[in-house]
Amino acid sequence: MNDFSKIKVFAGSASVELANKICGVLGVEVRPGEKITFSEGNIYVKIGEKVRGEDVYIVQTIGLDPNNEFMELLFWLDAFKRTNVNSVTAIIPYFSYAKADKKDEPRVSIRARVCADCLEAAGVDRVVTMDLHSPQIQGFFKKPVDHLYAAGIFGDAIRAMGLQDYVIVAPDEGFAKKARYYANLLSVPLVIGNKQRLYHDENAEVLGIMGDVDGLDAVIVDDFTISCGTVAEVAKALKARGARDIYAYISHGLMSETGIRRLNESPIKKLFTTDTVYNPRAEKCEKVSVITASKLFARAIKAIHSHESLSALFE
Amino acid sequence: MNDFSKIKVFAGSASVELANKICGVLGVEVRPGEKITFSEGNIYVKIGEKVRGEDVYIVQTIGLDPNNEFMELLFWLDAFKRTNVNSVTAIIPYFSYAKADKKDEPRVSIRARVCADCLEAAGVDRVVTMDLHSPQIQGFFKKPVDHLYAAGIFGDAIRAMGLQDYVIVAPDEGFAKKARYYANLLSVPLVIGNKQRLYHDENAEVLGIMGDVDGLDAVIVDDFTISCGTVAEVAKALKARGARDIYAYISHGLMSETGIRRLNESPIKKLFTTDTVYNPRAEKCEKVSVITASKLFARAIKAIHSHESLSALFE
Amino acid sequence: MNDFSKIKVFAGSASVELANKICGVLGVEVRPGEKITFSEGNIYVKIGEKVRGEDVYIVQTIGLDPNNEFMELLFWLDAFKRTNVNSVTAIIPYFSYAKADKKDEPRVSIRARVCADCLEAAGVDRVVTMDLHSPQIQGFFKKPVDHLYAAGIFGDAIRAMGLQDYVIVAPDEGFAKKARYYANLLSVPLVIGNKQRLYHDENAEVLGIMGDVDGLDAVIVDDFTISCGTVAEVAKALKARGARDIYAYISHGLMSETGIRRLNESPIKKLFTTDTVYNPRAEKCEKVSVITASKLFARAIKAIHSHESLSALFE
Amino acid sequence: MNDFSKIKVFAGSASVELANKICGVLGVEVRPGEKITFSEGNIYVKIGEKVRGEDVYIVQTIGLDPNNEFMELLFWLDAFKRTNVNSVTAIIPYFSYAKADKKDEPRVSIRARVCADCLEAAGVDRVVTMDLHSPQIQGFFKKPVDHLYAAGIFGDAIRAMGLQDYVIVAPDEGFAKKARYYANLLSVPLVIGNKQRLYHDENAEVLGIMGDVDGLDAVIVDDFTISCGTVAEVAKALKARGARDIYAYISHGLMSETGIRRLNESPIKKLFTTDTVYNPRAEKCEKVSVITASKLFARAIKAIHSHESLSALFE
Amino acid sequence: MNDFSKIKVFAGSASVELANKICGVLGVEVRPGEKITFSEGNIYVKIGEKVRGEDVYIVQTIGLDPNNEFMELLFWLDAFKRTNVNSVTAIIPYFSYAKADKKDEPRVSIRARVCADCLEAAGVDRVVTMDLHSPQIQGFFKKPVDHLYAAGIFGDAIRAMGLQDYVIVAPDEGFAKKARYYANLLSVPLVIGNKQRLYHDENAEVLGIMGDVDGLDAVIVDDFTISCGTVAEVAKALKARGARDIYAYISHGLMSETGIRRLNESPIKKLFTTDTVYNPRAEKCEKVSVITASKLFARAIKAIHSHESLSALFE
Amino acid sequence: MNDFSKIKVFAGSASVELANKICGVLGVEVRPGEKITFSEGNIYVKIGEKVRGEDVYIVQTIGLDPNNEFMELLFWLDAFKRTNVNSVTAIIPYFSYAKADKKDEPRVSIRARVCADCLEAAGVDRVVTMDLHSPQIQGFFKKPVDHLYAAGIFGDAIRAMGLQDYVIVAPDEGFAKKARYYANLLSVPLVIGNKQRLYHDENAEVLGIMGDVDGLDAVIVDDFTISCGTVAEVAKALKARGARDIYAYISHGLMSETGIRRLNESPIKKLFTTDTVYNPRAEKCEKVSVITASKLFARAIKAIHSHESLSALFE
Repeated sequence: MNDFSKIKVFAGSASVELANKICGVLGVEVRPGEKITFSEGNIYVKIGEKVRGEDVYIVQTIGLDPNNEFMELLFWLDAFKRTNVNSVTAIIPYFSYAKADKKDEPRVSIRARVCADCLEAAGVDRVVTMDLHSPQIQGFFKKPVDHLYAAGIFGDAIRAMGLQDYVIVAPDEGFAKKARYYANLLSVPLVIGNKQRLYHDENAEVLGIMGDVDGLDAVIVDDFTISCGTVAEVAKALKARGARDIYAYISHGLMSETGIRRLNESPIKKLFTTDTVYNPRAEKCEKVSVITASKLFARAIKAIHSHESLSALFE
Repeated sequence: MNDFSKIKVFAGSASVELANKICGVLGVEVRPGEKITFSEGNIYVKIGEKVRGEDVYIVQTIGLDPNNEFMELLFWLDAFKRTNVNSVTAIIPYFSYAKADKKDEPRVSIRARVCADCLEAAGVDRVVTMDLHSPQIQGFFKKPVDHLYAAGIFGDAIRAMGLQDYVIVAPDEGFAKKARYYANLLSVPLVIGNKQRLYHDENAEVLGIMGDVDGLDAVIVDDFTISCGTVAEVAKALKARGARDIYAYISHGLMSETGIRRLNESPIKKLFTTDTVYNPRAEKCEKVSVITASKLFARAIKAIHSHESLSALFE
Repeated sequence: MNDFSKIKVFAGSASVELANKICGVLGVEVRPGEKITFSEGNIYVKIGEKVRGEDVYIVQTIGLDPNNEFMELLFWLDAFKRTNVNSVTAIIPYFSYAKADKKDEPRVSIRARVCADCLEAAGVDRVVTMDLHSPQIQGFFKKPVDHLYAAGIFGDAIRAMGLQDYVIVAPDEGFAKKARYYANLLSVPLVIGNKQRLYHDENAEVLGIMGDVDGLDAVIVDDFTISCGTVAEVAKALKARGARDIYAYISHGLMSETGIRRLNESPIKKLFTTDTVYNPRAEKCEKVSVITASKLFARAIKAIHSHESLSALFE
Repeated sequence: MNDFSKIKVFAGSASVELANKICGVLGVEVRPGEKITFSEGNIYVKIGEKVRGEDVYIVQTIGLDPNNEFMELLFWLDAFKRTNVNSVTAIIPYFSYAKADKKDEPRVSIRARVCADCLEAAGVDRVVTMDLHSPQIQGFFKKPVDHLYAAGIFGDAIRAMGLQDYVIVAPDEGFAKKARYYANLLSVPLVIGNKQRLYHDENAEVLGIMGDVDGLDAVIVDDFTISCGTVAEVAKALKARGARDIYAYISHGLMSETGIRRLNESPIKKLFTTDTVYNPRAEKCEKVSVITASKLFARAIKAIHSHESLSALFE
Repeated sequence: MNDFSKIKVFAGSASVELANKICGVLGVEVRPGEKITFSEGNIYVKIGEKVRGEDVYIVQTIGLDPNNEFMELLFWLDAFKRTNVNSVTAIIPYFSYAKADKKDEPRVSIRARVCADCLEAAGVDRVVTMDLHSPQIQGFFKKPVDHLYAAGIFGDAIRAMGLQDYVIVAPDEGFAKKARYYANLLSVPLVIGNKQRLYHDENAEVLGIMGDVDGLDAVIVDDFTISCGTVAEVAKALKARGARDIYAYISHGLMSETGIRRLNESPIKKLFTTDTVYNPRAEKCEKVSVITASKLFARAIKAIHSHESLSALFE
Repeated sequence: MNDFSKIKVFAGSASVELANKICGVLGVEVRPGEKITFSEGNIYVKIGEKVRGEDVYIVQTIGLDPNNEFMELLFWLDAFKRTNVNSVTAIIPYFSYAKADKKDEPRVSIRARVCADCLEAAGVDRVVTMDLHSPQIQGFFKKPVDHLYAAGIFGDAIRAMGLQDYVIVAPDEGFAKKARYYANLLSVPLVIGNKQRLYHDENAEVLGIMGDVDGLDAVIVDDFTISCGTVAEVAKALKARGARDIYAYISHGLMSETGIRRLNESPIKKLFTTDTVYNPRAEKCEKVSVITASKLFARAIKAIHSHESLSALFE
């Protein structure tokens, strides 16, 4: 009934590979476009075919080169709007500045709102993204945001590992609520890492683990990691408390070289992440296993294209 | 050097008492204004003295009659702007719709953003509020938001109780991060309430308590309560695990009649809250103790008026 | 040619009955939606079925509980926009704050403009309403407003009464121009009530009647009444000048208890109004006769849906 | 205390004379500016002195060459904003398009709202105007509008004529409410002109006069006239009903040549108007007497400059 | 495949003739509309048929009566938007204020941006225009601008003249870049007129000609002329340097009476222009030849209507 | 009279050196601020002292790392606005994306307008910049832009060289108009480089030089260079036509390594540029001489601070 062959997906330079995978699921080709970075750093983009009156999708993550990637996305959006498309949906697999979502100290910027305003000023009609650092960021936009969750594909992967007697671990209190969602989804106990300052000694910060892990496998969940600092430290503490095998499921894998090194040195057996951020370091690391999120985005595009409910698809 | 006697504070009908207290601290009188509710429900407001060119403050909580209170605030703001004030700051002690800050199910509204947009459309220049349900709501506004914390006055009050050997309790995972702030501020352990579904039985929801409370006093902290459901349940669970005296510190006290009844029936010894919401039921309940937040707001107004840094004042 | 069975009409909680009648005329069912008022007064709305890409209509009057009803409407609008509808039309049968349409004294708000701005901030694409207190309010909106008139259905009803020798009565000078429209439509004389202060005595306000009513029936017309004060007083003055039977046609019937009592005590034989405001008091009063405006709104929706001209339909 | 010598008033080309009079009252000189109309019709404006950081006033009526005058005003506003003034107030003595304030037939523009939007887009910070065709037009602006009334100066002038036994006359129902204000101000009766269609004959339009004028002087009031059609016709009808001397007070005098001729042929003894519109034809006509509104605008500017209340000044 | 018979083109009063020609090319009739200028100068427009849900085109040049023409266009746009069209495209053959595109002296307005803002405030969805004074003006709009070039039709006309050995002449340095485009298109040399001040004598301005013209025909190109001052002076200088026949191709022909006189007195043999501006003076002058641009606009409308690329059509 | 010691100038990371020089001229210290780039590329900024109610200046060029520099500037602006400054002026010495100022081919973005919109969305109150690629870019902003010219300081420097018999050279037709300004300022002849395609052979592009240079020194002027391609080629052509010494004055010096190499290999004796872009390569090259533009910016800041006219200062 719906002809998905007409879906027009364009790829920003930061998400060429993912866009190809998404289009593979959709059974279409990525539409042509050109991006040039001039020698002084200016970015130029050009849409490679006529798009007047079309509903188009541009896939561009804000990942490991966030400012160049973000500006490029703004230029794509403006190019689409000035070419008279009917609508343009930004597929932003990882929305980098989402971490900068509040004024938690004086005289700083709420950078995620700045980014939302720029995207809307450049003409975006709709945003699709995955596992925002806080779901409130949807409210930074006036335009509709479709917020996807890795929990479905991660839940399947965790079940497929066939673990016996395991717990879900939130690395700190800030992720406790989302980790609770995983624990309930999988019907296993929740364990929470936490850093405590006790008895009036400022320096005596102790990493505690709330909940019992002795003799159990442990699956740490988090939304992103760069340096693997928190996750590796928690893994050590879990091991010290008698945990058996330790795994980590991290939605967005931004691991730096330091991060890869820390991961390799840690008691974590395997770190699972998605391909929302293209990270060559992660692909080369034996401890890292990348699960594609392309199906998730492909299904979102299909739902938007055919006016189906996203909620019906992703329960 | 700064002449605080010139500060112009107006009171919306929902915050007459608090505005008076704030003005008491500032050493000024609340400025005159009139609010009428006509028999068919329409609200009319009129500023009672000339304000051209002034920097004015309007105190109006969005509390136990939120929609009438919110619309009244919009009309105050528009009246100030159309009268050519230099700027108008909305002091919203409790920003009711802050709970509705995300799209956590399909086809609902992000009501806190709707409210932010309406306030800005009505002309607000700056917002001062306290203990937002999530700090990200600052990013729903383009205009500056000064976000105050009850933690300072609550911390003082907890210390003043002179408890020996006590813990801070987060009633659920969602408040764990903020409760951690209290725990670190007071250098005591953190305990977290949590609801678990275990072993594939959907109905077997169990309220767990992570952390040890046996023989210790317990201080539950939360941002608001209406029905006292969560806080009373957690108190019972703490008691069952051997806790001694149990207290609660709740920033915004919206207790309904059911809430007061539940509180009275619970093992909670005393519930402390602030006067951000005028709640006659709370004032009459012997178990409730209201700590005024007026000094906090007065100091914010002073800082704004004299261009001092709010951060310097509230560390 | 146009398939009206696909029209999607939703009902806000203030207009459930009218929405049902409108849908009855259209031959469709009201679409599902949920509205909850929590115990502290917050309103929550949820659209009950998928609406991506649809053109939807939400019927919500701003009537006898105006602020709750207005905020609810804002949340419906935002929910529709964030769910990616193609367009959302607000059917506001009675736009309560339309009376507050100017700054006729210093330091007040133009509340109708505040409401217009909030509706547009929340995302409304088009407004349909009836008998605005002043037609200029269309200009408070950037978005198109379809302004319907009760004059057609009231004219039919007046003719159907089969009166001989009657006049149309404007209760005061402010309604004289619109009453002239009725008088010309029905080809009968116009009579105007007016309050005069004469000969330098401030208190000597006299209700005069301009025009002859002796031995004639009289039909008072007005856009709304709450307390029935003006209409009852004019009716007495008409009677005193020899009028025979006296009727009133009031577009929006917001009668309070006082209003119903005054009506019952007045020489008015029958007061006709519409169902733009749901008013149980009116329905119980024997002197009140409610004429449904549902056909008017149904025809407007049909015209919008099929891109027909509203002017062609309502001449 | 307030130094009015610093007030910066600029004159648009349509209000050079009035701006000079206003400045005369204020005791300042009109500030220098240049306006050129090129041979193909383009307008160019240039501010003649530095204004960075100033609060400036630009006087420009929208009168007998409305589109050229309006565009010129937009360019002045933009020039002021781009030159970094602190604020710019547009003094628009006559706001021509105010008559086009609603959609009273299908497929037309609400031209007054278009003009309001353009003024705001060009950067106006505040508008001062006089006797708008409908006061609701204030609500077409988000920016504050100070709406002055000629009623004060007209009332003084009418009293100064020393008439015995006279009535105020509204030329039609549309002006009845404002004429009532005059009648009450002067404590004399109100009479209303009206056009009636009677007894189903479309062509039999009869100009009626509601109220008694036999042996009385009559003072017709209206907000503007171009062709003097209505006012002359009403004057004749008043004469036919036995009125003695007939005068007219018209806020904005836009009389065309036809208008002057009709006035001369009519039984009107004298037509009083203001200088909000520069109309050389009016100045030459012996039946026309121009009362300057410059004091009114000067007092408004003083009030704005010194942050005094306009309401206090103009009661 | 595309049904061009459904295209709805309306004509503003400044472009009736051109709109008719465009519609002739499209094979449709101009749609009905009414424009009235009242005796005091106010403009009124009314769309003459239903347009709900349609994509409409309004042709209105901003030419020899620019402010009246511009305001009329704003009212058309607002009328279309308030009548619920799907989209409205403004075809502005000559965008008069494009010359006022920068702040090249202090305290002036960027009038082209003011015009762009007003058009967008009035609701324009897309603009089509030809040979803007500077192409940067596209960036004054947020909405898409389709910028057409006369170079194609002028190039054809120049070739059709069958000149041997000729040069393209830029009348001054400001047009050198565009003239270079013509020269390269036709593969002939470029010659540039320039005014030099030499050797520290301010008054000794000399019109120089860079490049050789002796014995060659010369084709001067420019975007518009009013007084023919520059073009006539350059023609004389060319003649003095031995040029044979001299022609001018001017995109927009706004010649005043002075301009026609100067043209007649100049050595220019023929001046070619387009019909973007209706100029009766030009049509009567034997030295002027008008080439219609209607095909260019018709093809743009077809491309927009059928979602074809404009670039593909106009290479 | 004006106390310049209170001027608050902050330095973005791209303009630390220039900001220091500007502050040196002003006699103040650069105000403290912190900028961090996290390992995954996210930028964080923090203002280092209280600025409530202040008028602040942030110096940040968009130079050789344009996207990182631009995003950083947006975050500074937002941080200032959310901290309640009175106003924030962005000093953008080189506005990189100014080159992308039009749609000169289909389906591209007008990137300069995107940047202008983002700066305004982030809250900028005023922009100061130098030698924009086209002056029309001022019109891309609604906010005031103060556009400075290097011509003054370059003119002084050229005069100081004491050349005898020299010409100003525009490297191509696009810069001819600005080069004419230099030529007239210095009262010397103008020469224009141009690329011609002649006699229907597409590949036969010839670099011509219009004007005589034999035996004369030549000063090439341009707004920026990256690769030195154009300027070196023109220099060679000038040499071939007998020019003596050749110099270049380039406002913004973005020379890449290739650019420096080409410059060294070219007959250009010296290339003068400013410090609007920090370019270590330029500083090391013996052929490059950097003239500071700091005085120009300092005087602009002084003028803004003291509400003096910029035009008066820079004639």
